[in-house]
Amino acid sequence: MPSLVLIRHGQSAWNLENRFTGWWDVNLTEQGIEEAKAAGRMLADKGFDFDLAFTSMQTRAIKTLNLALEEMGRLWLPVVKDWRLNERHYGGLTGLNKAETAARHGEEQVHVWRRSFDVPPPPMEAGSAFDLGTDRRYAGIAIPSTESLKDTIARVLPYWEQVIAPELRAGKRVVISAHGNSLRALVKHLSGISDADIAALEIPTGQPIVYELDDALGATDRYYLSER
Amino acid sequence: MPSLVLIRHGQSAWNLENRFTGWWDVNLTEQGIEEAKAAGRMLADKGFDFDLAFTSMQTRAIKTLNLALEEMGRLWLPVVKDWRLNERHYGGLTGLNKAETAARHGEEQVHVWRRSFDVPPPPMEAGSAFDLGTDRRYAGIAIPSTESLKDTIARVLPYWEQVIAPELRAGKRVVISAHGNSLRALVKHLSGISDADIAALEIPTGQPIVYELDDALGATDRYYLSER
Repeated sequence: MPSLVLIRHGQSAWNLENRFTGWWDVNLTEQGIEEAKAAGRMLADKGFDFDLAFTSMQTRAIKTLNLALEEMGRLWLPVVKDWRLNERHYGGLTGLNKAETAARHGEEQVHVWRRSFDVPPPPMEAGSAFDLGTDRRYAGIAIPSTESLKDTIARVLPYWEQVIAPELRAGKRVVISAHGNSLRALVKHLSGISDADIAALEIPTGQPIVYELDDALGATDRYYLSER
Repeated sequence: MPSLVLIRHGQSAWNLENRFTGWWDVNLTEQGIEEAKAAGRMLADKGFDFDLAFTSMQTRAIKTLNLALEEMGRLWLPVVKDWRLNERHYGGLTGLNKAETAARHGEEQVHVWRRSFDVPPPPMEAGSAFDLGTDRRYAGIAIPSTESLKDTIARVLPYWEQVIAPELRAGKRVVISAHGNSLRALVKHLSGISDADIAALEIPTGQPIVYELDDALGATDRYYLSER
């Protein structure tokens, strides 16, 4: 049976400060590092193993994966890094904390941006301190200026279909270390969650989510590893 | 101009204990971790950058690479891991420290195994505590039972020619994090060092070695980054 585990990166410095992070490359906190190691230990203790790992181009997800794999004695596994697993791009909200965003845009508008399916925040202004246009990791990629959750899903799912799903169908045991919204995209698809409900689904940091899949990659079960 | 940097992994637990390690998967010491980070900081400070990284299937080399890349803000680079960059397989000496080896085999014989070009140590006995026959990372690979330096070179150089050299010719800036003897193989090839001299060439841990190469991948210069 195909085997899939999803892990949202451990706590980052901006998770802690409640700032919109998106594509900005913030590192893990000490707590985030411990969460990642604990995830790896739990996976090993419960007999999980993998053949292939996927992650984003962002340090917090890559490092979470590396720390977990090291705890499992699996640092040698092949790791594929792709921007299509990056966090949702928060556009002009990037770098703002909740209070700053509410002061600038109003509480209600912020709630819409956080919880709507298809309303993107205002675009990032060119020349913003958080503009990644000159970051060579994204050379050749049309970096979004902002994304709704729907936009994020629209780049995660083709990657799932074209790159990840064929590996699962070939029998590979896969782990994906990514972000709240890129993982929402996968959970929405695999668990058939509606547009209206998906934005409210919270994915906790550092908690391995196990999918049991049938041969057509339909989900027969989904659970937090910590709960079994 | 093609650009190549070699790094031998930072100090490992068995470097410190003076034990023959070979393919056994020993982790870095705290000093080794610091060496790896310092290598990354030095590379960044001196303006080095990479497009592609290669390493072995062994934790100490992979972790050295990851730590150095993180210091450079380059954890997102593609990393290729291959057993052909593994350390020389020390056969039946694996796990023995210098004193134990000398007591069992005599000082002179140990010197021959360490410093000769083509004399392999005795093979690892099947069922040895250090037998990797059941380690799935090497599934499908004919794990050597022992290797001379010549044997190590005989699997490193084809990998260089078939996989690494084409990337350099394509203009990629490459970093290789590997081991004393797999790096000796590359240095011997690139710097034209004789069979008689190569075993005595010491490659220090955690010290980036820079190769300046011409378009035919001939070495025009080789230096320790710490000396420029």
